[in-house]
Parts: sequence; structure tokens; C-alpha cells
Amino acid sequence: MKIVFHIAGGGSIKVPAAPGQNILELARANGVDIDAPCAGTGVCGKCRVKLVSGEVDGERSRQISDEDWDAGWRLACQSTVCADAELLVPATASAFRSGMKVAAMSKEDRAVFEHELTNMYVAGIDFTAPVFTCTVNMEIPTLDDPEPDCERLLRAMNGLGYKSVSYTLDAVRELPRVLRENNFSASLICGWRGEDVLVYGVRAPGRARACGVAIDVGTTSVAALLCDVESCDVLARAGAGNSQIRYGADVINRIIASNRPGGLEMLRSAVVEDTLNPMLETLAGEAGVELRDIVRVSIAGNTTMEHLLLGVDSDPIRTEPYVPAFFDLKGLTASQIGLKVNGSAEVAIAPNVGSYVGGDISAGVLATTLWAGSDFRLFVDLGTNGELVLGNSELMMCCACSAGPAFEGGEISCGMRATDGAIEEVRINNETREPSFRVIGGVEPMGVCGSGIIDLIAELFRAGVLSANGRLRDGARVRRDEHGTARYVIAETENGEISISDVDIDNFIRAKAAIYSAIDTMLESLGMDPSIIDRVEVAGGIGSGINMDNAIAIGMFPDIERRKYGYVGNTSLTGACAVLLSREAEAKLAEVGRSMTYLELSTYPGYMDKFVAACFLPHTDASLFPSVGGENNGVS
Amino acid sequence: MKIVFHIAGGGSIKVPAAPGQNILELARANGVDIDAPCAGTGVCGKCRVKLVSGEVDGERSRQISDEDWDAGWRLACQSTVCADAELLVPATASAFRSGMKVAAMSKEDRAVFEHELTNMYVAGIDFTAPVFTCTVNMEIPTLDDPEPDCERLLRAMNGLGYKSVSYTLDAVRELPRVLRENNFSASLICGWRGEDVLVYGVRAPGRARACGVAIDVGTTSVAALLCDVESCDVLARAGAGNSQIRYGADVINRIIASNRPGGLEMLRSAVVEDTLNPMLETLAGEAGVELRDIVRVSIAGNTTMEHLLLGVDSDPIRTEPYVPAFFDLKGLTASQIGLKVNGSAEVAIAPNVGSYVGGDISAGVLATTLWAGSDFRLFVDLGTNGELVLGNSELMMCCACSAGPAFEGGEISCGMRATDGAIEEVRINNETREPSFRVIGGVEPMGVCGSGIIDLIAELFRAGVLSANGRLRDGARVRRDEHGTARYVIAETENGEISISDVDIDNFIRAKAAIYSAIDTMLESLGMDPSIIDRVEVAGGIGSGINMDNAIAIGMFPDIERRKYGYVGNTSLTGACAVLLSREAEAKLAEVGRSMTYLELSTYPGYMDKFVAACFLPHTDASLFPSVGGENNGVS
Repeated sequence: MKIVFHIAGGGSIKVPAAPGQNILELARANGVDIDAPCAGTGVCGKCRVKLVSGEVDGERSRQISDEDWDAGWRLACQSTVCADAELLVPATASAFRSGMKVAAMSKEDRAVFEHELTNMYVAGIDFTAPVFTCTVNMEIPTLDDPEPDCERLLRAMNGLGYKSVSYTLDAVRELPRVLRENNFSASLICGWRGEDVLVYGVRAPGRARACGVAIDVGTTSVAALLCDVESCDVLARAGAGNSQIRYGADVINRIIASNRPGGLEMLRSAVVEDTLNPMLETLAGEAGVELRDIVRVSIAGNTTMEHLLLGVDSDPIRTEPYVPAFFDLKGLTASQIGLKVNGSAEVAIAPNVGSYVGGDISAGVLATTLWAGSDFRLFVDLGTNGELVLGNSELMMCCACSAGPAFEGGEISCGMRATDGAIEEVRINNETREPSFRVIGGVEPMGVCGSGIIDLIAELFRAGVLSANGRLRDGARVRRDEHGTARYVIAETENGEISISDVDIDNFIRAKAAIYSAIDTMLESLGMDPSIIDRVEVAGGIGSGINMDNAIAIGMFPDIERRKYGYVGNTSLTGACAVLLSREAEAKLAEVGRSMTYLELSTYPGYMDKFVAACFLPHTDASLFPSVGGENNGVS
Repeated sequence: MKIVFHIAGGGSIKVPAAPGQNILELARANGVDIDAPCAGTGVCGKCRVKLVSGEVDGERSRQISDEDWDAGWRLACQSTVCADAELLVPATASAFRSGMKVAAMSKEDRAVFEHELTNMYVAGIDFTAPVFTCTVNMEIPTLDDPEPDCERLLRAMNGLGYKSVSYTLDAVRELPRVLRENNFSASLICGWRGEDVLVYGVRAPGRARACGVAIDVGTTSVAALLCDVESCDVLARAGAGNSQIRYGADVINRIIASNRPGGLEMLRSAVVEDTLNPMLETLAGEAGVELRDIVRVSIAGNTTMEHLLLGVDSDPIRTEPYVPAFFDLKGLTASQIGLKVNGSAEVAIAPNVGSYVGGDISAGVLATTLWAGSDFRLFVDLGTNGELVLGNSELMMCCACSAGPAFEGGEISCGMRATDGAIEEVRINNETREPSFRVIGGVEPMGVCGSGIIDLIAELFRAGVLSANGRLRDGARVRRDEHGTARYVIAETENGEISISDVDIDNFIRAKAAIYSAIDTMLESLGMDPSIIDRVEVAGGIGSGINMDNAIAIGMFPDIERRKYGYVGNTSLTGACAVLLSREAEAKLAEVGRSMTYLELSTYPGYMDKFVAACFLPHTDASLFPSVGGENNGVS
């Protein structure tokens, strides 16, 4: 049998299939990326595909309306092959693909990035390059001076003042040809290993470049920078979805997938072979360097991502007593990990702090220089989950809150990532209840991303469409389904209606409550209140579009002066980049990791009460948000 | 078209073929090993195959008699496919295969091996194991003690007194499962890296074993020992032909082959993938250990073998000014080289001394403890070439002489390696000229190995069948061909006649003259004469069957007391094994390599005269061999 997948905006693929084969798995096996945040359990309803011809087996699931069912809409994960069929994979289901540009650095992000590197330098980190190039000119061998190439080069390096020199096997392999083609002159790509020099590569004179790559491996997205480490120049940037997303949207689903037979290797391979290696090739191609010129790699990811990337069993992270295999690993090389750069390249992995506070957070703290000053700061990373760090050079406390994927559009029916087609800013007219919004990429809207949802809820609340306990009030643009669940319709497009329901709002309020109650709990555990905070730095996938006023208005962040808030970009990538460029940054990162105290919220007395109290707009205790007006009484 | 190869004693293989394809190349490409010492140039005549049915294209070459031609004998290298055909690959042509047992250690060899290791110990080398095992028992993690596995193990190792501990990625990957299956107890395979401990592997308690492999990579044969490094036990031994032999019998032909497009990788792969890795699997299987338990490797080979094994261009070795890429390389790991043992295993490569005096000789010198005492010794390694070292703890001089492959049966029509079917000892009756001989394996004779040829020439000379200038005299058992070339018939078997001709004798006399004149030149350059020599140690592929009396009688070795001579086995393997077992031996080997002075014979004044003078039985100056009688006057 044959199944044809027509991918919206991406051509078609015809694949052989056997009766009974699961459509989602068939798609995956053939490189058709269908978003399935729930890992194919039928819960999320995001893997909708449309039957164009032929048929598939499977019962209607509750996420498909009768109307849609009749129109041919099916959940890929709940359908199996029974005959030849053609299926349309809509843009929403293949959103992952269009997300390939997510991490391309905007001008603003770049400014933040450079600002942060400068701050680290100001904070005392020495940016002496850990890898470098040098050029040697040697005597041409004769019968009277037949010293071998390696020993001859060693002598020349000694002459340049490098005392202890060793070679990678690749360098030894390159040496004879390069020397003989260039009259026994060569440029070398070298690295410091303590006091010793390791020669990574041998090039024609003037052709050596000591490059490196910094990578942020997120649960959802991966971002990377290719740098000339010696000159600190960023040569290329790239971003892509993490191919592991086929196995689940969050770390828990990934761990479960990795625990199936062969699963660990599948997840490792998904991120290394399917995501990182193609990305490295793209980066090298764009920058005009060879992969073997990349001799240093710095990676930051959350604890689970780092485990899966290295092919290390992460299952103990998921079950009590939640013990990872490692916090801080040293001495890794690219060939061990399977990265297609110079096989001897050192790979620095940002140290984890707890099972759910990983290297992305320690790298983020490094990047923000929170560790350096006496001012008291709150660092909030809003990605697929939410992690927070509170403190200064004296003390750093961190925690992870189970905010879930709501800030990246997960568990919200209209939710999507901050990519083309996402509504990222919303305003609602108090009188007419009519929305106005901005869509990323200026295209037809497909859904709403995290910053858009914050705006939407704040504006709905302000306009009195939404009550303080998160219920939509009937009126213009509010519709109800057969069960009485209300939804606010933001837009009606040819792909259908974009709306947010009571259920979505409930999910999002729980997510914002998780953030607020985590901040509250950390402050309480230190005997402090929000006024102590000198600065709040918000990082992560929620994007620079976040409106801090609205985030405070919905009670996600404490009600302190707005000027104290700032969006700091992808700090995980910035921190990884600092480590790429500096051994001192690497050492500082290890120290930062070790000096962070992990607070386990789930066992903290009173945390649940705080959470419940925060599940309200903005909070059950309105006195905590003096600057936030109540709901619009005119409409209530 | 189809070609069927029937391999004597080894089954048949049917392969598809295209018209015009070379038969030798076709055989090689399909794993049929046909000996072709001249690398397929049609010179050596060793790649004879017999046409059983069908036909092949190609003209008769001079190595095939009319009679043999009519019987279907062809040179594989001079024949091409033109139709379906069946070919017999005779035992002589597939001798390489039967050589798989060459290196299996005999009882005598083992005694020599143990004696040499003991001598090294007596000479002051500390045999503290560079790798070791240890067992740790840890507290089971709880919510109050959720330290990660690696950090927990680190704490336990610190408790055992190991201060700085790091892990290979393999060990990190093994850790979570082993700990959880064994109540947080484990046995570790560890290695010292300076003062630091590297954990190579994690096993169930009591199941760890720190193993290593010592390998002698010869031009012709490869021999290996698998050891429990911690206990110094030899767990298994293996030997095999070097699969590179398909590309030529000697180092020069190998270098030429490696210089063709893709040739370097072909030669590297031949020895690593086709020879070493299967051997490692066999060794591990026999010893009942896993390949990942092999965490240290020590390799010794000649300069060219070490280059080709590492995939390093060896062409500059072959052409003036004869410059290798390296003498001494450090820091290599098994994964870089492609050895299928623990990827992080350190691989020690014995240092080379000159372009034609390699790591096999430095390892040999280490093994003989020539470097340790004040007695003056001569070390002679008779393999595919001949290398010599003369000296004591004060001074060591070495040289390589172009003896060629004669001592392993090369360039001798009846010559073969010291394997089953080889005549290894010969006596000739002075009256009847009838030979009596001993054949290895007690089978039908197929040829004569090095020690047999020495005996044969010495006995023919003694019996007056051979003149002092190496001409056979007519009489019983001497026949002449159409060109008048004489040959002495040793045996007539169903595979044909085994005989030695004037041309063979000439070749062998040049080989023995190369050895003698090299010894003479080294002594002269030091202002010494043979009487200074306290001991002569003969090593290498010529085998323990060598009759020293006869070797002196033909003027190969100086005429000094017979009790000073001894056969010392495969010293390259013994030296490699010492390095495997001891870092001090490794350091001593590097020192030995550096302190050897290389004497280039080809440019030494007077060397050619000495060589020509030695091309006589025993020597043009009979006074140098007072104890050797002249030829049998009764027959002359």
C-alpha cells in the first residue's frame, strides 16, 4: 500500500505502508515532521491531518468535531493504514518545520547578546581565546637533517615559545602533505590544554582559522552560533526545531520515550544526527569554513536535554528521588558525542544544578552576570518550562516550576510557537470587544504565541470580557459549544477560527500562577518581599514581544516598578558562547553551577496554597498588585 | 559473467565479474587472498592459479612453463576475465591464509617471553599496572540526598583516596543502570592519567577486569597478546597474516600502493579492519572478556607499518631525503585509530628511530634489555627486512640493511614462510647428495622457509654441491633448464618439484651478505671487531629453527663462539607487552628510541665494498671465518 503525505508549503512524499501501521509513526519514519506534543497518546489533538483521498482506520476522537470528521480531519496518532490514501499535513501540524528560523538572531537580540558579553568582561572574565592559530616556517629536510615532520614542527614550536606540544591524529595525517606543498611552512590550529598546546589541524600558511560553536539545546528549539574564537567574531547563526519533538513536547514525555527499547539511541540520534549535525553543516557552509576547523564546542541545555544528547539514561530524573546521572562532566570530545566537527574538539557542557534546573540556567546566570554584583536580581527563563534564579554575588537560589509548555503555546488550543503566523501582540477594544493584533511575519494568523496569550488575557480582563476567576462572559465574540464551554474568537481565517476557551485560559492561569507562586516562595524562604528585587530579567522562548505591563497585570510577575524589568534574550546561548570564547568563563560557569542552591518547590510547605491563591486575576490578594486595576466594571 | 575460485582447503566462492577485469584484483575484491609479493606486476610469479574450466585472457609469462600453461596454470595478475571460468587457488598461492597460526606462541617462545619480562624487571622497570579495577559501595540516593550518580561516585572515589577522578562518556552511560541494578555498588575499570584517575567502565561488583592488548604489526605477520593488565596474566594469543600483503610483500611496495588514489585508506583499512579488529574479536572471545574491557593497547611495528596503520602518508619515507611523518606520537586513543576496543583506550605506539628502523626495533631493544647492561650486544631482527642494533647501556647504534624478504622465503622460487608445509631443517649426504629434511606440521612439503634455506645452502656448500661463489655443480639432483640455469631438487611432490636454483642462491647470498656487511660496517664505524661482542640475539620471523652454526657457515653472522648466539623470539611483541603492562616501560622505550643512533649504510664509505666481499661462501676473506671449513674438496 502507498500513503502520500502532502505537506503544506513543502511538497509531497509517497511512501510504502503496511496495513495497521500508525500514520504518525509512518510520517516520522519518513521524515515528515508532525507536531505531537503529547507523544502520540491522542490527548493534545495537534497532529491533525486531512484525508484527501482513500481511507485510514480509526475512530473519531473528541478533539475532532463531527463536521471536521466529515471533512476528512483525523488525528495522525489515532489512525492506521488500511488502504492507499493521500493525506494533507496542514501548516499547523507542520509548524515545527516553519520554526526553523526561530533562533535566527534579530538585531535586538544581537544587541542584548553583545551587551551581555561586554558585561561579563566588565565583571572580570578574561576572554583569552582557548584556541588559536599560529604560523611556522621550517628548514626543508635534507639527507643531513632528516628529522620527521612532527619532531621538526615540535622544534619550530619550541622556537616560538610553546614548550609542550602534542598532535591530534588528524593533524599528523595532514602534516606531510601541507608541509610539502608549502615549502615546509604551515599555519596551525591549536588549543591550550592547561600549559600544553594541542595541534588540531595543519593548513596552508594563512589558511588556518580556529573556530568554535556555541549551542543552546532547548526542549523545543535549538540555536547555535559559529564563531571565530580567536577574534570573537560571530560568523554565522542558525536555529532549528529540536527533532526530538516527534517523541513528545516536554521533558517528561521525552524521558518516557527514551526509556522504550532502543529509545535512548533514537532520542540521542534525533538531536545529534537530525538536528545538530545538519545545523553544523549549514553554519560551516554559511561561514565558509570547514567542519574540521571547528575545534571547540560549548553546549547548554536543560538536565534532560543534556542527558539525552549524550545518550545517558535520564529515566531516574523522572522518578523519585529524581537523581540525574551527572551535573558536571569534563573531558568530552566531539567524536565521543558524534558531532561532525573536528573529532578532537573539546566539548564543554554547561553544568546542571538540579534534575529540573539544568545547564541552560547555569549558562543563563553566567550570561546575566547575576553572580557578579551586590544588586538583588530575579532571573526568569520562560521556555517549555519555567526556571527561576534569585540572588546576587552572595547567594543564588534557583527552582523549577511546572509551568508546562503554555508560554510556548502548548496546552492552549490556539497556541503556537513564536514563529511566522503567530499572533504576538493583542489589544481589545473595551467597548466593542473587537481585537486588534500583530502577526509575526505579517501573514495570515495561524495561532497565538506566549506573549500574545499574555496580552489576550490581560486585555480580556481589562475589557471585562474575562472575570477574575478566569471565566469568559457572554457577549460579542464569545461563543459557547454544546457543553457550554465559552470561547473568545480572535479571528476567523480560511483555516478556521482562532479562539481561546475557558479551558485554555484556565491552563494559562495555572502556568502564570506557577511562576508567581515560585517567586513568592523563593522570596519567603529567604525572608524577603518583592521590594528587595533590583532587577527582573526575563529570558527564553517567550520572545522579546513580551509586554511586562500585561504580565504583571495578569499576576504572573510581582507588581514592582516596570523599569526594573527587562527581556534578556536567549541567555543560555549567550552563556554557552561565553564559555566557547573563554576558559575563565568556563571555570566561572562551573563555580556558578556549584554555588546555586536548589529549592524543591513540591515539598516546600505552603507552596500549594500560594499556587492556588495565584490562580486568579491578578491574585486572590489584590493588595499584592496595587498598580493593577480591577476588571472593567462598566461591562461586568 | 561468473568466476568461481576454489581455494585449496578453504571452500569455493562464486563471484560476478565483468569482461576485462583482472583476476588478481577480482580475487582481492572478494576476499580471496592470493599472495602477490610483487604487487601484481607479473615479476614474482607467486600468484599462480589453475584454470579448471572456462577460460581467461592473457599471454603466457616467463614464470609459467609450456607444460604448466597447457595444464591450465596462469598468473592471476596477468589474466583477465573473458568468459565464465573456474579457478583453483593452490595452497602455495593461499599460503597467507594458512599462516594464520604463525604467531601462536610455542612453549619455547613463551619461556623466552617470560624470561625477557623478568629481565626487564631485574633491570629496574617497575611493573605497576597503568590500569586497574576497584569496587565502590555507595549510599542509595533519597529525596534528602539526591546527588547525581557521577558526583556520588566521585565522592566515593575520594573516600577511597583517589583525588582527581574523571569519566569516559561510555562510563557515564553505563553508570545509571549498573548502580540501580546493584544497590549502588559497582566495580570500575580505571586508568591512571598522571595523578588523575580516568574511569573507563562501570560493571557489576566483582565483574570488572582491566585488560589490554599488545600487538606486533609486522610487514608479513601480525601477532597479539591479550592480557589482564592488573594481574599481568596473558589471557589469549593470536596471530594472523597482515592483510596488506595483497598490496605488496615489502614496505616499498606497500608505500607505492598507498600512494595511489584512495590507497592510504585501503592500506589502513586492510590492517585495521581486516586484520586487527577480527583478531581482537577472536582474542576477546577466547579470553571471555568484552572488547570494551580492553582499555589499553600497545603497538609496535616498523616505521612504514606504523604510518599506514595510522593512515599517515608514508610516501616521504620512500624518497630522498627519506623523512617519516613522526618518530614518537603520544595521546592516541583506540577510537581515533578505529580499533574495536574501548574507544577511550590509550594506544601506545612504539617510537621509530629512523625511516627504516622502526618501533618494532626500539621495542625489541627494550625487550632484550640491551640498554641496561655494560656487556656489548648485537641484536639482529630478521623479518621481511633486516635491522641490527649494536651496543650497551652507554651507546646504541642501529641500522637497516636491504636484506629483502629472503629470510621469510621471499624472492626465492621455493621460498615460503615458516608455516605448515615449510621445510625448516635440511641435511645433505656428502656422498649421495641426497637431502633429508623436517617439514613444519609434518605434512607434505610445499616449500622451504628461511631457516631451511640457510641449512640448505650451508649443507650444499659443505657437500661440495655448491661452489664458494654460489654456483651449483652438476651431478646427482642438479638439473638444468633450457637456459642452462642449474637447480638442486630437494623433493618431488604431487604439487611439483621443490628445488633451489642458482638464481635463488644468488638472491639469498646477497641477503646474508647484507646482514654480514652491516654488522661489519657498524663495528668498523665504532673502531671495533667482532671479538667485542658478548652476545648475539637473533629475533624475528626467521623462527626458532635457525641453526646458528649454519648461519655462520654461510657467512651471515660473524665467526665467534656459538654459545654467544641465541634466538630471542618476537621481541617486538615482548617489548610492546612490557609497555602494555607498565608506564615505566613506556617511558623507558621512549628513552631507548631517542638514544639510538641511526647509521645510514647506503652513504657509509666502504659499505658497498664490504657487501660485495661478503657475497661469497662464507666470505672472500676466508680468514674472517677460521672455524668454517672450505667446501668439500672431494667433490670439487
